[in-house]
Amino acid sequence: MLAVATCVALLGCLQAQKLQGHVSVILLGATGDLARKYLWQGLFQLYLDEAGQGHSFSFHGAALTATKQGQEVMAKVLESLSCPEDVAPSRCAELKDQFRRLSQYRQLKTSEDYVALSEGVEALVQQEGRREAGRLFYFSVPPFAYADIARNINSSCRPGPGAWLRVVLEKPFGHDHLSAQQLATELGSFFQEEEMYRVDHYLGKQAVAQILPFRDQNRKALDGLWNRHHVERVEIVMKETVDAEGRTSFYEEYGVIRDVLQNHLTEVLTLVAMELPYNASSAEAVLQHKLQAFRALRGLRRASAVLGQYRAYGAQVRRELRAGHSPQGRDVPRQWGAQRTGSERRADRQGGRTGKARGLGGPRRSALGRHLCCPPVASGILVHMDNLRWEGVPFILMSGKALDERVGYVRILFKNRAFCAQSEKDWVTAQSPCLPQQIIFYIGHGELGTPAVLVSRSLFKPTLPSRSWKEVEGRPGLRLFGRPLSDYYAYSPVRERDAYSILISHIFHGRKDSFVTTENLLASWVFWTPLLDSLAREVPRLYPGGAENGHLLDFEFAGGQLAFCQQQVEQLVLGPGSAPMPSDFQVLRATYRESPLVAAWPEELIAKLASDIEATAVQAVRRFGQFHLALSGGSSPIVLFQQLATGHYGFPWAHTHLWLVDERCVPLWDPESNFQGLQTHLLQHVRVPYYNVHPMPVHLHQRLCAEQDRGAQAYAEQISALVTNSSFDLVLLGMGPDGHTASLFPQSPAGLDGEQLVVLTESPSKPYHRMSLSLPLINRARKVVVLVMGRLKRDITMLVSRVGHEPKKWPISGVLPGSGQLVWYMDYEAFLG
Amino acid sequence: MLAVATCVALLGCLQAQKLQGHVSVILLGATGDLARKYLWQGLFQLYLDEAGQGHSFSFHGAALTATKQGQEVMAKVLESLSCPEDVAPSRCAELKDQFRRLSQYRQLKTSEDYVALSEGVEALVQQEGRREAGRLFYFSVPPFAYADIARNINSSCRPGPGAWLRVVLEKPFGHDHLSAQQLATELGSFFQEEEMYRVDHYLGKQAVAQILPFRDQNRKALDGLWNRHHVERVEIVMKETVDAEGRTSFYEEYGVIRDVLQNHLTEVLTLVAMELPYNASSAEAVLQHKLQAFRALRGLRRASAVLGQYRAYGAQVRRELRAGHSPQGRDVPRQWGAQRTGSERRADRQGGRTGKARGLGGPRRSALGRHLCCPPVASGILVHMDNLRWEGVPFILMSGKALDERVGYVRILFKNRAFCAQSEKDWVTAQSPCLPQQIIFYIGHGELGTPAVLVSRSLFKPTLPSRSWKEVEGRPGLRLFGRPLSDYYAYSPVRERDAYSILISHIFHGRKDSFVTTENLLASWVFWTPLLDSLAREVPRLYPGGAENGHLLDFEFAGGQLAFCQQQVEQLVLGPGSAPMPSDFQVLRATYRESPLVAAWPEELIAKLASDIEATAVQAVRRFGQFHLALSGGSSPIVLFQQLATGHYGFPWAHTHLWLVDERCVPLWDPESNFQGLQTHLLQHVRVPYYNVHPMPVHLHQRLCAEQDRGAQAYAEQISALVTNSSFDLVLLGMGPDGHTASLFPQSPAGLDGEQLVVLTESPSKPYHRMSLSLPLINRARKVVVLVMGRLKRDITMLVSRVGHEPKKWPISGVLPGSGQLVWYMDYEAFLG
Repeated sequence: MLAVATCVALLGCLQAQKLQGHVSVILLGATGDLARKYLWQGLFQLYLDEAGQGHSFSFHGAALTATKQGQEVMAKVLESLSCPEDVAPSRCAELKDQFRRLSQYRQLKTSEDYVALSEGVEALVQQEGRREAGRLFYFSVPPFAYADIARNINSSCRPGPGAWLRVVLEKPFGHDHLSAQQLATELGSFFQEEEMYRVDHYLGKQAVAQILPFRDQNRKALDGLWNRHHVERVEIVMKETVDAEGRTSFYEEYGVIRDVLQNHLTEVLTLVAMELPYNASSAEAVLQHKLQAFRALRGLRRASAVLGQYRAYGAQVRRELRAGHSPQGRDVPRQWGAQRTGSERRADRQGGRTGKARGLGGPRRSALGRHLCCPPVASGILVHMDNLRWEGVPFILMSGKALDERVGYVRILFKNRAFCAQSEKDWVTAQSPCLPQQIIFYIGHGELGTPAVLVSRSLFKPTLPSRSWKEVEGRPGLRLFGRPLSDYYAYSPVRERDAYSILISHIFHGRKDSFVTTENLLASWVFWTPLLDSLAREVPRLYPGGAENGHLLDFEFAGGQLAFCQQQVEQLVLGPGSAPMPSDFQVLRATYRESPLVAAWPEELIAKLASDIEATAVQAVRRFGQFHLALSGGSSPIVLFQQLATGHYGFPWAHTHLWLVDERCVPLWDPESNFQGLQTHLLQHVRVPYYNVHPMPVHLHQRLCAEQDRGAQAYAEQISALVTNSSFDLVLLGMGPDGHTASLFPQSPAGLDGEQLVVLTESPSKPYHRMSLSLPLINRARKVVVLVMGRLKRDITMLVSRVGHEPKKWPISGVLPGSGQLVWYMDYEAFLG
Repeated sequence: MLAVATCVALLGCLQAQKLQGHVSVILLGATGDLARKYLWQGLFQLYLDEAGQGHSFSFHGAALTATKQGQEVMAKVLESLSCPEDVAPSRCAELKDQFRRLSQYRQLKTSEDYVALSEGVEALVQQEGRREAGRLFYFSVPPFAYADIARNINSSCRPGPGAWLRVVLEKPFGHDHLSAQQLATELGSFFQEEEMYRVDHYLGKQAVAQILPFRDQNRKALDGLWNRHHVERVEIVMKETVDAEGRTSFYEEYGVIRDVLQNHLTEVLTLVAMELPYNASSAEAVLQHKLQAFRALRGLRRASAVLGQYRAYGAQVRRELRAGHSPQGRDVPRQWGAQRTGSERRADRQGGRTGKARGLGGPRRSALGRHLCCPPVASGILVHMDNLRWEGVPFILMSGKALDERVGYVRILFKNRAFCAQSEKDWVTAQSPCLPQQIIFYIGHGELGTPAVLVSRSLFKPTLPSRSWKEVEGRPGLRLFGRPLSDYYAYSPVRERDAYSILISHIFHGRKDSFVTTENLLASWVFWTPLLDSLAREVPRLYPGGAENGHLLDFEFAGGQLAFCQQQVEQLVLGPGSAPMPSDFQVLRATYRESPLVAAWPEELIAKLASDIEATAVQAVRRFGQFHLALSGGSSPIVLFQQLATGHYGFPWAHTHLWLVDERCVPLWDPESNFQGLQTHLLQHVRVPYYNVHPMPVHLHQRLCAEQDRGAQAYAEQISALVTNSSFDLVLLGMGPDGHTASLFPQSPAGLDGEQLVVLTESPSKPYHRMSLSLPLINRARKVVVLVMGRLKRDITMLVSRVGHEPKKWPISGVLPGSGQLVWYMDYEAFLG
């Protein structure tokens, strides 16, 4: 400390000023597979890069293994370390020797062991005459071991004041949103957010790590291009040729979406889609913008995914079960020590992630208890972003095993906006603006064989840091993404580096933007969990594997839905929901309260209702020139709005008037406002003229539903003026668990009868004040539709089926159009429970 | 008549019932080039097709040529007629002989000649013992001769009651909207609309004539595809290898847009884009839907076009001028008789279309008086349609001479919505959903050499009438539109038929949907005239011609604008407006009334203003989280709205509040409403949240601007509540020729000073009642922009530059923001006159 303080004033002590503190690296699981394959090499690289910069280092391999045995394993690992190509062998031996001297193995089992470790580090620091800079704990252990270790570090092994603590965690970070949240909460009781570094090794892959710098350094060219007006699609792909053999017990539990898409491909997606911060090297700004990208992801539906499973998978599962493979997989050392092979995260098959709500240190349950019905090992997902930059641009995520090639890439394909006046045979290759224009971050493998950044020559000449990226040499005959390599400006790293050595360097430098924060992790699970839930019983398409797959796994999208292009030729396992489109077969027609009832599974129900509404609209416009539609708020209508917005091109929006059935007394822009749901999920996507939209005037003179503002009367006047006979063409209602409908509640007389068309009412739940169409007005409609969805409606559905006309007890029972039609739409959960 | 009346009751007289009336065909210009090449053959074909169906025929060749000479020419023509392939030579000779006996030549010069013609026809009919069915006059004469002929037919040559009159007209149908309207009015004084058949011979081309039937017969497959969600682009192309040699005097006047695009390509466009009538064989429905398609065309701007001219053109013009080529072109007989060569409409070079406002029979003026500055002989145009089906889909129209190939086609390219899981080298050709999917109506020539309909095999198998269309035989090695012929379902006509013979048959059957109605003609000119006007001084890009053109004529579009892809390497003729993009060079900065003035040509001015507004918006949102923009109505702002809607992706619309500067007291949906302009040209294209849009409340309680409704006060309250300090971030004003601004008029005190923020005012012109922001409120803005455009503003611009602060005389002079900034934006016409 003295040295540093003195140096502030002196210029000559530059060398001395570089004498910085001591850094201790504790590698937990030091003898495990991941450590042996990547982490020791990464730490050696860290030493090579940083030792000359002023810090001193000590490296502590730790595991449950007994000291002697551990020392032996570690010695072997350290012997096998390699130096960069440009280091001479003699110099390399010297460096390895230095590194070995700074490294030692110790058994870490009891809390006393941790205390001893801490004391050892302190003694070392004192002996060096330095201050302590920080301690880095790398958890290369199965998550079931996290809790004990975390508790011990927190209680006995924190560095003194002024020095940092960094703990590095390996996935899986939970199995769904709830488990991820529990894990995060538990870790949060031991560590600060800034102390935790969650690794997604994809973020250390050179092409992935280059995405933001590339966007930053080519701002001028990309600024106008990086948006929905120019990008046709984004593909984020990780294809593998290997299958799941030896890992079926893991896949039985996890499937490819949790294994690859929720983490690796989603991280890449956010790097492409996020708004580029003004200062792209600010980790805080990057993480904030990334979080915003997560929040702009449009919710996925069952139809957002296609699933596949290679044919041999089932037999492999049975074989591995018979062979007694534990859920932890084969040949995994029982000591801590996470195992990886290649870029493949074999660590995933480590145990300890069983049980949906498993506590961090809780007892291990058999993975079999949570096996999926029929886990997908290949999946394509269609993602959309709800923001101005990306609206409408398909982001296609795809990963799978037993495919025809091993390759990973992000491909940004631009819209073709050129017309070539010359016949194609006369085009000058690579110069024609009619050829595909694309930017590809080639993550690795594939025909190119190295990480690369490719930019179509007809697009622009990119800027890449010339110290670390060089032009790829010509490879005649090599075609990538439909064009010869020569059509691209192509760059690959001057030196290929392993993802772990890059990430270890980032940990050391505290570059948190290369890691997964708790917020981002949870945001990702918020996005993926509903899809995973809805796919739980989905049967994947079977495929032969390899090049034989032909076009069987090709998929296409329309109206926000994905589907395989080819009809299934052969379906060995049949199950509910395997048909991608609603069909009459799945829609039940019956009666309810003496009116027609349409019942179906949720998606088919919504599809049917949407097309019925469209048909009514078309008919009304044909007959009367306009269509007056009154809509309720709530969550079921939102799904309907989305369906109408994305799937119904023929809807006569220009002639449709939209009215509200009821409204909460909040400003229109309040997230609680029914109008806000309508605006977000419908109005923003279709072209209804402004003056055909009729929000309820709940917010006049900056007051909410004040009697003296006469909002209800004004709305009634508007209706009388515009709607013939005040008779809506269609009124969409819901039904509450208490039998309420619109905002007409039991035991509250307003609006149940009388002359008033629109009334102010009181709700038993917040926000209490409401405005609502009255029952008499609703009953004047030509058609009334009641949409009831979800298990929570089961009881009231049963009850209301038996009651008579008792609107004061159950307002819904008062819905009985005078001369119009009443139709009930219920999903099976509401109808059959 | 007796025979028919009797037959109603009898079954045995079927043969007799077929004995229908007599049809006289009078071919005016019977010895001209068009008649010789196509029309006589078409009439012979008509005779072959129809003579057996019950009508009797007589064919009257007519011209100014003296009888004997005319008879000789006609005899030669009739001798050279050919029969369809499947008619044996002996039978053909017999048929030709029959036809010759029914045909005669007569000179038609004086009104007596017409009377004689009419009497001759009547005598013939009587002699046959039939009733007269109708008379068909084919005007194969230059338009300057139309008036006389039309007058004579109308006064002396109409058939008797119960028989039809059909007159067939050949283009040009005017030179712009005004001349077309005058021509139409004049013709309308002689003929009923249903009597006139305006020929666009493209509508008779087999592939073009198949567009609607194809859409009709493949409704099931196309219903979901024929819209903006699936169509990526539509290309409508007619390329020629010949240049304009021998026709330069015509091109000097007309250019390629009038020659090809306004008529042929636009007709084809409407067939592709129109809503398909429920009954596609109803001519009335087709014409109505076509008209709607014309009306949905978004207005073109100068930037909607790229223009080219092959290098040798200039020298050809000078040579042909020196050689004394008349504007009527070379070797045209001075007698009537329109001339065509090939599909090329050489008739166009006939005289009689000179003088913008030339009367139909007016004196001929030299065409040189209206030569274009630099006529384009190649042009690409980007067309958009403002309707829900096609919004955002580019329709590319392209035609030119001296290009690399002769070909005509309509190509509908579908969006690629598939992801192929297999590497490209393993795709099964023609089955892969990742290959381009397209439908092509191949009009003719090109590498295929025949008319055809092509549908990508991966799209669907089309239905075509098997009697008239057959599958195209394989042609190994032939590639069309990027794919081998084998990738398509390809059909060509069983029998190739000339467009004229098809059209003559349609005239006979009264199928008006194959012709250009007056309404559709004028709608087309309404669409094209503003572009033609704005291009009048535009200098085309020069190109070498043929395959040498390379990529020089390739063009691309972005933000609704077209531009050549390549920078101009060489520009031999420089002129104003030849640069496609606004640049600072073209924008003049000065001061006006001691405030900054930006002056430029209109498009540059609007472009500059739009980006200035965007910059202000971005800054305001960055600083305050929102941007309050108050907009005026009128025509100049509309161009601005369009610019903002199509060219500014970064505009923070979600955080922008839109206010009105003033409003007319009409309902919001009235076309006169300022809000309606805002809605149509801006709101429909961007995503401003509903509650950020603030129309003026001029229409409360179904009344317009009633004092007691206190609309002005309500608007003022809204402003006070939402806009900090009631200080708008930007107010856009205009200036009237009387010095008014907003709706604040001279000599009317309201709103010029005082406390009121919003006032009701009186306009000297209709609609008289207005609502307006007051001067004091305007002057609280952070920035006020006054946009002044057009020659009509010249005087007031001059005047206001000299007056002081006299708002009561010139309200605009009262615009003087207290602490904000005032900037004037004027185009050169307003500023310099």
